[in-house]
Amino acid sequence: MARVAALIENLFEDSEFHQPARAFREAGHQVTVVGLEEGKVVKGKKEGTTVKVEKAVKDVSVKDFEALLIPGGYAPDLLRRDDTAVAFARDFVNSGKPTFIICHSAQLLVTARVLEGRRATGHKAVIVDIENAGAKFIDSEVVVDGNLVSSRTPADMPAFIRECLRQLA
Amino acid sequence: MARVAALIENLFEDSEFHQPARAFREAGHQVTVVGLEEGKVVKGKKEGTTVKVEKAVKDVSVKDFEALLIPGGYAPDLLRRDDTAVAFARDFVNSGKPTFIICHSAQLLVTARVLEGRRATGHKAVIVDIENAGAKFIDSEVVVDGNLVSSRTPADMPAFIRECLRQLA
Repeated sequence: MARVAALIENLFEDSEFHQPARAFREAGHQVTVVGLEEGKVVKGKKEGTTVKVEKAVKDVSVKDFEALLIPGGYAPDLLRRDDTAVAFARDFVNSGKPTFIICHSAQLLVTARVLEGRRATGHKAVIVDIENAGAKFIDSEVVVDGNLVSSRTPADMPAFIRECLRQLA
Repeated sequence: MARVAALIENLFEDSEFHQPARAFREAGHQVTVVGLEEGKVVKGKKEGTTVKVEKAVKDVSVKDFEALLIPGGYAPDLLRRDDTAVAFARDFVNSGKPTFIICHSAQLLVTARVLEGRRATGHKAVIVDIENAGAKFIDSEVVVDGNLVSSRTPADMPAFIRECLRQLA
């Protein structure tokens, strides 16, 4: 059983939280919703689903979890303004523990400056950001580079979940 | 009288379109709303104001205008997915004609790869994107670097509009 932190904020891409979270739980893993403020109810971008933040990012650290999931949408844009969230993401990637990003989530890792020399994919909108951060962008449904698993869009979900579960096993 | 293209899409930051557009018109300039599709009504992110796209970006070129205004919000994220919008922004900056960016608008110029060696400012969320694009980020209410005028947020509006009007004069 792995403990997975899901780092989200308002305007998260609904399916990119709910589908992996469900798959992780069904496989016996534990998912904790981490956000900027404990108890805050955040709302998805496309479907408007709501999720309650269980732990504030300032109250957790990498040692509390075995893996990190960062759903996309515009939540990463909101999270990257918060120095604590950026530090948490940075520490996670640097720890070598599995980190799962999809769609716009690479934005948070760009601000955390941890993409240098990595291979990753992401939404078309952030391709140049990924490249300028020193990573090699790969146009594939899923890219696994060590502890970093990345996908482009919700359409890549089956491949994304498959590789995430492989890392959690 | 200068002809100004305002390049917008859904989720534009309302004030970053309406306030400069009003100031430009009051100063005798002409503002044309350019977007992905002629006739499309786009909606602002914060206040939900609506604006009708007058010209599709595929139907205009740099020679039709003397200046380009790119409001922020999440509109630049949507525009940077469109190769025609990216090319229009790239051509504009490269033409040497005044280009006005604020908040998240730098994202479009990052994808257009025209920030290398420039001085610019922008929203905290995109600081690393600006730096990784090869520009020098300056934390100031307005930065004027040749034809490029940039500001950080709606709070910088008076300084932003002042410098834009100076370029249009």
